[in-house]
Amino acid sequence: MATRSKHSSSTKEKHEVEGKESALKGNKENKKGIIVQSYKIEGLSIAGHETCVIFPSLNLAFDIGRCPDRAISQDFLFISHAHMDHIGGLPIYVATRGLYRMKPPTIIVPSCVKENVEELFKVHRRMDNSELNHNLIGLDVGEEYCLRKDLKVKAFKTYHVIPSQGYIVYSVKQKLKQEYLGLPGDEIKKLKSSGMEITNTVSTPEVAFTGDTMSDFIVDEANIDVLRARILVMESTYVDNSTTVDQARDYGHTHLSEIVNYADKFENKAILLIHFSARHTLDEIQGAVSALPPSLAGRVSALTEGFNNRRN
Amino acid sequence: MATRSKHSSSTKEKHEVEGKESALKGNKENKKGIIVQSYKIEGLSIAGHETCVIFPSLNLAFDIGRCPDRAISQDFLFISHAHMDHIGGLPIYVATRGLYRMKPPTIIVPSCVKENVEELFKVHRRMDNSELNHNLIGLDVGEEYCLRKDLKVKAFKTYHVIPSQGYIVYSVKQKLKQEYLGLPGDEIKKLKSSGMEITNTVSTPEVAFTGDTMSDFIVDEANIDVLRARILVMESTYVDNSTTVDQARDYGHTHLSEIVNYADKFENKAILLIHFSARHTLDEIQGAVSALPPSLAGRVSALTEGFNNRRN
Repeated sequence: MATRSKHSSSTKEKHEVEGKESALKGNKENKKGIIVQSYKIEGLSIAGHETCVIFPSLNLAFDIGRCPDRAISQDFLFISHAHMDHIGGLPIYVATRGLYRMKPPTIIVPSCVKENVEELFKVHRRMDNSELNHNLIGLDVGEEYCLRKDLKVKAFKTYHVIPSQGYIVYSVKQKLKQEYLGLPGDEIKKLKSSGMEITNTVSTPEVAFTGDTMSDFIVDEANIDVLRARILVMESTYVDNSTTVDQARDYGHTHLSEIVNYADKFENKAILLIHFSARHTLDEIQGAVSALPPSLAGRVSALTEGFNNRRN
Repeated sequence: MATRSKHSSSTKEKHEVEGKESALKGNKENKKGIIVQSYKIEGLSIAGHETCVIFPSLNLAFDIGRCPDRAISQDFLFISHAHMDHIGGLPIYVATRGLYRMKPPTIIVPSCVKENVEELFKVHRRMDNSELNHNLIGLDVGEEYCLRKDLKVKAFKTYHVIPSQGYIVYSVKQKLKQEYLGLPGDEIKKLKSSGMEITNTVSTPEVAFTGDTMSDFIVDEANIDVLRARILVMESTYVDNSTTVDQARDYGHTHLSEIVNYADKFENKAILLIHFSARHTLDEIQGAVSALPPSLAGRVSALTEGFNNRRN
């Protein structure tokens, strides 16, 4: 068949090879997703089951869950922590990209788990002779990594029961310095070619993703950009009083009532709540979101793919 | 909430704990499945993506794919080989059972990968402090393992590009020896209590699962019970001439035309074809099955969950 990928001559790749398209299309899944602040956001996040939140226009996914097909085409992956429902699909993500001859992905993990993640891939390579090509970056809280000229990511501190971190994605733009504003174009060109530094680099927090965390990250003063990001994707595992705040904290999670209490701290244009308990019904989640106070209502939405109205 | 699981006091388990039911119900998936020879068979099998074939009445799954929710409640798991689309979900399977406080599963793998699988779990334990309790058994071709008094499994040789094996599940029954047939009940009771061995153990091959393999397993004389099992679950990656038999062999797979050529060898009451190429459409698969010759027609069906009529 003309469209079939060429046979691999390498024994390492003697596995059935198919077109890249099937991975991109996510043929087995309902492609749902929502639009928030002009960003399409896909994926699903169910506490204990799987969390993978995808921003296709940024070419990235936060956490990998069980590797939903839609994640495979994203070139960048950010892992918040090593609980299985967040990292379990990582080898599948890398293997599937290899099978479809997609370029090796860039995977950012907390520095402290990097060595173990390397070991994970080594074990799989020993078992199946695969290459599992990828670019693995360990990032510490406060450290940055450039995704492309106009996009960078920075890790921020979160508060979970095992080492964890969130990520802020910044848009990066060169802006003309104040003193050159209003100069004619040819003057600016001349200054530039003379080697003068005529621009400032302006970084704007676009998207912040918390992963799993207690609400403490909200009052951590180092996290000011998290609360200023255009979109904040934040865990809110419990939405009603069937679980108390103390219980939520005991599990290292956030209760929606804490978010309400901190409402005035969020300068975000939009907040997307994720990681609801699998015991919550769709009605409970939607009811809780629609009952939010005016300071939050209208800018908060919920990622509810996988939830329905049967009590699980 | 009364139905919520009790809090764990162990820091190792300080992760959100939910009721076991949500794992059992597979709330995010359409529970399809088919009935073959009175056995309900669930799961999905798409080459390169994920293969997990579940027999709920036998409490077992063959291969784990990306760990579909429906697999989690099965106490026994048999892994055919270590390609990622067959083994990738293994840590998720064990972790999710732990989260739901289900008993540690029994996982059977080819002996040659056992050490690496152990290492995989060790790496995850180091990363997330979880227990990942399970019972891991390495089985060689020809070796048996008792699942319960009336059920055992035996590994058989398959022919793939990396080490692989299939599994035959036998029902095990005690049957009265020929010479005692027709004796009155109290006579039999007397013989039995005297310590006489009055029964034979009769093993009947119920289900055979190939995993990935070239058609060579069919003509391997040691595999006679595979061809006699009541149900044979067999890979048939390619169903039409868009891929040749030589190409199929190059990938270590079986072409449906080979199954047709060997039709008279199969004594199975039913054959379930799995592991179709992701490029095949549902129509192509169903068309190929309905065009099978009389020797196969009527007893062959296909596991097609995840396939549709868009060409991927």
